[in-house]
Amino acid sequence: MSETRDKIGFIGLGRMGRGMASNIRRKQHPLTVHDIAPGPVAALEALGAASAPSAAAVAQASDVVLTMLPGPREVQGLILGTGGILDNIRAGGVVMDMSTVDPETTDALAAACAARGIGFVDAPVGRLAWHADRGESLFMVGASDADFARVKPLLEAMGSTVHHCGGPGTGTRTKLVNNYLAIILCQLNAEALSLATAFGLDLEKTLEVLHGTTATNGQLKVNWPNKVLAGDTEPGFAIDLAHKDLSLIVQAANAAKVPLPVAAIAREAFSSARARGFGQRDFSAMLDAQCDLAGVAPPRLGGAK
Amino acid sequence: MSETRDKIGFIGLGRMGRGMASNIRRKQHPLTVHDIAPGPVAALEALGAASAPSAAAVAQASDVVLTMLPGPREVQGLILGTGGILDNIRAGGVVMDMSTVDPETTDALAAACAARGIGFVDAPVGRLAWHADRGESLFMVGASDADFARVKPLLEAMGSTVHHCGGPGTGTRTKLVNNYLAIILCQLNAEALSLATAFGLDLEKTLEVLHGTTATNGQLKVNWPNKVLAGDTEPGFAIDLAHKDLSLIVQAANAAKVPLPVAAIAREAFSSARARGFGQRDFSAMLDAQCDLAGVAPPRLGGAK
Amino acid sequence: MSETRDKIGFIGLGRMGRGMASNIRRKQHPLTVHDIAPGPVAALEALGAASAPSAAAVAQASDVVLTMLPGPREVQGLILGTGGILDNIRAGGVVMDMSTVDPETTDALAAACAARGIGFVDAPVGRLAWHADRGESLFMVGASDADFARVKPLLEAMGSTVHHCGGPGTGTRTKLVNNYLAIILCQLNAEALSLATAFGLDLEKTLEVLHGTTATNGQLKVNWPNKVLAGDTEPGFAIDLAHKDLSLIVQAANAAKVPLPVAAIAREAFSSARARGFGQRDFSAMLDAQCDLAGVAPPRLGGAK
Amino acid sequence: MSETRDKIGFIGLGRMGRGMASNIRRKQHPLTVHDIAPGPVAALEALGAASAPSAAAVAQASDVVLTMLPGPREVQGLILGTGGILDNIRAGGVVMDMSTVDPETTDALAAACAARGIGFVDAPVGRLAWHADRGESLFMVGASDADFARVKPLLEAMGSTVHHCGGPGTGTRTKLVNNYLAIILCQLNAEALSLATAFGLDLEKTLEVLHGTTATNGQLKVNWPNKVLAGDTEPGFAIDLAHKDLSLIVQAANAAKVPLPVAAIAREAFSSARARGFGQRDFSAMLDAQCDLAGVAPPRLGGAK
Repeated sequence: MSETRDKIGFIGLGRMGRGMASNIRRKQHPLTVHDIAPGPVAALEALGAASAPSAAAVAQASDVVLTMLPGPREVQGLILGTGGILDNIRAGGVVMDMSTVDPETTDALAAACAARGIGFVDAPVGRLAWHADRGESLFMVGASDADFARVKPLLEAMGSTVHHCGGPGTGTRTKLVNNYLAIILCQLNAEALSLATAFGLDLEKTLEVLHGTTATNGQLKVNWPNKVLAGDTEPGFAIDLAHKDLSLIVQAANAAKVPLPVAAIAREAFSSARARGFGQRDFSAMLDAQCDLAGVAPPRLGGAK
Repeated sequence: MSETRDKIGFIGLGRMGRGMASNIRRKQHPLTVHDIAPGPVAALEALGAASAPSAAAVAQASDVVLTMLPGPREVQGLILGTGGILDNIRAGGVVMDMSTVDPETTDALAAACAARGIGFVDAPVGRLAWHADRGESLFMVGASDADFARVKPLLEAMGSTVHHCGGPGTGTRTKLVNNYLAIILCQLNAEALSLATAFGLDLEKTLEVLHGTTATNGQLKVNWPNKVLAGDTEPGFAIDLAHKDLSLIVQAANAAKVPLPVAAIAREAFSSARARGFGQRDFSAMLDAQCDLAGVAPPRLGGAK
Repeated sequence: MSETRDKIGFIGLGRMGRGMASNIRRKQHPLTVHDIAPGPVAALEALGAASAPSAAAVAQASDVVLTMLPGPREVQGLILGTGGILDNIRAGGVVMDMSTVDPETTDALAAACAARGIGFVDAPVGRLAWHADRGESLFMVGASDADFARVKPLLEAMGSTVHHCGGPGTGTRTKLVNNYLAIILCQLNAEALSLATAFGLDLEKTLEVLHGTTATNGQLKVNWPNKVLAGDTEPGFAIDLAHKDLSLIVQAANAAKVPLPVAAIAREAFSSARARGFGQRDFSAMLDAQCDLAGVAPPRLGGAK
Repeated sequence: MSETRDKIGFIGLGRMGRGMASNIRRKQHPLTVHDIAPGPVAALEALGAASAPSAAAVAQASDVVLTMLPGPREVQGLILGTGGILDNIRAGGVVMDMSTVDPETTDALAAACAARGIGFVDAPVGRLAWHADRGESLFMVGASDADFARVKPLLEAMGSTVHHCGGPGTGTRTKLVNNYLAIILCQLNAEALSLATAFGLDLEKTLEVLHGTTATNGQLKVNWPNKVLAGDTEPGFAIDLAHKDLSLIVQAANAAKVPLPVAAIAREAFSSARARGFGQRDFSAMLDAQCDLAGVAPPRLGGAK
């Protein structure tokens, strides 16, 4: 298959990227990596990857370049900047950006790639870092059918769920909509459970009722019982990151003239949580931030603290 | 069993109450009913129930009196008012109120019953009118263990799910928390899907993604595909009623000094929907109200309009 | 003049009412008062007022009965209740309610008075307790022209500004609109000055700029420099009372299907301030509640603490 | 005086800039201008100004360079970009940016200027375009004392009110705080007057009451009677621009971890107004957008439409 012969470049070996790149290498794809931190680079070399001293060098060595970067600024700089990836990638190449960025940035990347005859795929990542480590990430992919077919083996090496959402730009947009719901649910559940606590209701019985009606939701059912309700607020996804995503969402919605009153007010709740020192806790800990405001003790399951 | 020997009174044969009372009668409980509307009374008589000309007369004829009334005002008047149920019920009797009321009203009822040695149960109803017709309602019950045991056969005649949430008052409070989540989810989903629509995303693909993450929720998964997304906005639960419940919730939360910013702002979204003529549509039609504000066409599944 | 011959009754000698009644007596109007607290009654007797043992007794002794009560519940009970003011007032009498109540309550009073041929005036009070002491209150009056002419000398005894807003009910409604603006301005200014503080701006210079543009407002210019910005948070008007007024306003607006997103969200800010212990401080201390959330020190003028 | 000998450069002759530059020229300051639009350049030449073909050329010809540009992107590009103003301005020069930008951009400009020994002043403009035409603008100035003294004659040529708020960066921040208040007041007043209208109150009488209490504010007292309440919604300051400013403010506040719930929700009200076609109307027309949502006719003074 042509895909397996593609030489792959991977730029950005952060907390998520290192696991993702490792899983590509484990499937024997030829891989060249780059990051400014030497540790993750060495770890990938130990798995048989080559390393390159710059994004440009990765691009020169690769047919398909994957980027997993902190945000829009880095993405624009490394891909579109002078001497960047687009200036160095081979004809017939593909750029696949998996960073979480705003739709404007994704559209600018797609347009710049199209103008040079380079394929472009936006494939932001769902789920958490430990999913990435295990090759169990979820991808929301915006790509032409041809580009999607080409990167599919890579996505399947890194993840267990791959959604082809439509053409370029739809991956980023679908992720924003998805994260909007998942993040705001934390504030919604926080309000509901702080009220239940102030009402003196039993947590287990309340959850039993909620899960039997249309009030139930993925955060309350799947994430919370293992995190804040179990007394674990170590970040699977930190409030600071959730706030950053909400900011992208509100900005994109305002650009699209879609009023999002609940999102806007929830973002301020996250801002307030950050100001009060909750920024580095798991986003389910919005429960603790809300209970702090309401003057009630945060509820916990069973013997959890 | 002692329960089956209790004579049952039922006051309030509205859209929900008539089905509930019918199911009690179908289980052969001795039943006396009252309503100001003659039609539902005649229908119950046809099932073998007796009728009485007033709430007081029902109370005199019954051991256990059930009330299913429009709101706090009617509940207080009929139960606590001069010449009302409490003035006429037998010693050893039980009052079970199934209306949706605020916690203050429920607490006042519980206290007045306790002061006279009458049992009190608050058992607000979940699910929709057609569930009540089929005996498939859900009940959130606040009662002492003894009172709960006594009314349990009645609840099981009317519903398929019965939660004993704790002592008197916990049924009403659990319902408020549950409805808070279920109702606000409508605004949350409305914002998410209006944004997806403005982004040009495909509805089916977007839902497929959302249902595979913690973004999913009972409204989006269970209610919406059969209602607004199928083009059916006939009210299973009307926006006007959702607004009324939200008003109770916000009032109760403010009384408890629990700030609920998302609930408060969502209530205004429901208020705005009512002002624009959406009050008598299903609460999933908050999607249409939101899309109207955002200037996009409300999305529908498949060929639905 | 006919007005001076009217015998006046005054019910409710709370913090505001005692000053108001005293000023009526100082203008030599024949006055009968009632309150459950003996102290203020004795003080009025010392000014030459008679006292009566009940609201009914006041009504029997008076041509014009003034009420200044805590809220809708007391107003409805004392005026409309069995054996209350309406049951005892003379033909040709007038009831003037100066309590802060919701429009529904005012409309119910007006209708009940009209049905019995009794005049009705709603005249809620503006400004603070110390204005009432000095006869410098502001009144927003809803009354027919004839009733207004009859109570005008009383209003002028109690206040220095009297607005005849329209027919019965317009006084209460104008007060809600006025208090909406005055109260929400406190949250608005709190947000602005907390941001200025986080920005490291000089308070005096910032105020100088704001007062020279359309950003200025009565709270920031008149109330705040003497209260929170001077380090004085003793309540002229407490956050708890502001929260109560906001609750009336939001309820009335929802009943009128007028969405008030800013009012709704500000009410939750007041709720949060109450939960965190600011309820008994002046409503300008919303600045301190907001700065507490933002993690900045509340700004003060000059050497104020 | 040394100031009058400075050669002045002015870049950005838009709706505001052309008036401002004209007033500098009218005071006989030696002036070189640049804009991409030929019309305004010709108009300035007619007043005796020189023109230059690029920002770089203006910088080379000037001691003090003034910029009045659409937003952060243009400001960063023209001042900090390769071959831009900073690369070409003389030693001992000063850059004064009068554009409305975010604090991060201003701080980046100040730091870059400081690193090269160039003075930096941020002096965003208050009031409207017709004030700029008449030399009656208001300036909020962030500058060292020395730089402020140097640019003061220029500011006094362009405006009638000049506030020296503190060091570099304080001008931009003060403007954000000021515009926050002025803009949100429009939504606040819109909610109040839509409620008054739904209540059936008389507009003139309501305003008379409000202006006599702490509810009054600069928008309601100064701007609105000449704009929306007079039936004139031609933009002195358009809703689209107000939305843009609010977005800057909310972004800056979130960066500073200052939660601004009222600002956030008001921004969505502006977003909703834009989606419904009000973007190009005066920001006082938030009244019309709000009345549209509430289903009431927007109130007008006297015979205005």
